[in-house]
Amino acid sequence: MTNPTAAILIIGDEILSGRTREGNAYWLAGELLAAGITLAEIRVIPDDHATIKAAVVELSGRNDTLFTSGGIGPTHDDITADAVADAFGRSIDVRDDARALLAAHYKSRDLEFTAARMRMARIPEGALLIENPVSVAPGFSIGNTYVMAGVPSVFQAMVATVLPTLTGGAPLLSESWRVQRPESDVADQLRALADAYPALSFGSYPFTIKGEYGTNLVVRGTDAALLAAAYDDLKSSFPVA
Amino acid sequence: MTNPTAAILIIGDEILSGRTREGNAYWLAGELLAAGITLAEIRVIPDDHATIKAAVVELSGRNDTLFTSGGIGPTHDDITADAVADAFGRSIDVRDDARALLAAHYKSRDLEFTAARMRMARIPEGALLIENPVSVAPGFSIGNTYVMAGVPSVFQAMVATVLPTLTGGAPLLSESWRVQRPESDVADQLRALADAYPALSFGSYPFTIKGEYGTNLVVRGTDAALLAAAYDDLKSSFPVA
Repeated sequence: MTNPTAAILIIGDEILSGRTREGNAYWLAGELLAAGITLAEIRVIPDDHATIKAAVVELSGRNDTLFTSGGIGPTHDDITADAVADAFGRSIDVRDDARALLAAHYKSRDLEFTAARMRMARIPEGALLIENPVSVAPGFSIGNTYVMAGVPSVFQAMVATVLPTLTGGAPLLSESWRVQRPESDVADQLRALADAYPALSFGSYPFTIKGEYGTNLVVRGTDAALLAAAYDDLKSSFPVA
Repeated sequence: MTNPTAAILIIGDEILSGRTREGNAYWLAGELLAAGITLAEIRVIPDDHATIKAAVVELSGRNDTLFTSGGIGPTHDDITADAVADAFGRSIDVRDDARALLAAHYKSRDLEFTAARMRMARIPEGALLIENPVSVAPGFSIGNTYVMAGVPSVFQAMVATVLPTLTGGAPLLSESWRVQRPESDVADQLRALADAYPALSFGSYPFTIKGEYGTNLVVRGTDAALLAAAYDDLKSSFPVA
């Protein structure tokens, strides 16, 4: 059985300008791995309606699940909710349940519920809200697409709500073995191992420390017994000198 | 005049599995900004021939320049060169000039020039080599696509060779102003500024420190005088309390 697939869509000019180093995709990649969901693509795009719409249509159509990060705040450049609604052919407006959440939040803090704050209650028709335990303004899901905030603490809290509801496959397991040999010197033996264990995948990641070349060898798969056998073979193929 | 655009394609299972936190795209984003080239998209995909080919066709067709990172090493999962050749409808084989570079390198280190190492001399027909001052195995360019190694030191050295040859536009300048107010509280004034300066772009990036909400306000543009005027307006709109 093949594991289900997911894509992550990161929305924000601040990533593409190099101002902010994106971390939500990296964090979610690890969570998906543990949940047995294969991450098929990460895409970073600007705050542009047509670009967001096209990417949502394409990536939600091609994967079992799409996660988006960013662009659901109160300011003029927060246009993700409208673009996602458009991608699914839904209308969008301030919704009573989302407005009630925000109204209670601002009331409890003695803050005015301004028009800008009201923007965060704009939810596509038929979407389900995703709770935001950090700063209240909700995310939402529509079809197979989960629309979440870009602020890392909020993003992570929303994923924690969503992930247990998704059906995963067998978690991908891995073992890693570090050798003090350049990558080009391990390639033949590694290919032989890859041929011997077609159900597993083998990767090699070169590094340099103090001018010496080394390589991290990684074997991955979902069958724990097979992985253990391959890892033994890997270690005997590359004994520590 | 609109600045030229670029896309970055990151190729590697190790990024999608959450094993490695990608840094080349973040670094190159900053370099492109300084060079006056607009980064339109970052995409991360697995080591899969059909996926790489389709992404190269799409992203090189839609942008002035495409940069790729990863998958040009000596091991069985290094398939980027073959997929890029396929994307451009070119044949690929070991090429004399690349083989000569590698042969001299291994000879000087008293290392055998194995079949695996020879893989790194596979270059698409008609491509230009990109020098690798770190570990010799070259990158290459074909059409508007620059194919570079994923190892950060090599990637950065290759970009340093390539970037001065590209035609950029006016560098994007930016100013940043930090306010101790939640993002929803600055939205209206920020939108007014965005309306007053349509040639500039305004962004807001919320943060929380010790439970207090704050927002970094950023204004960006290519016209230094206009930017300075808008920055003055931004500061007077949000005086430090």
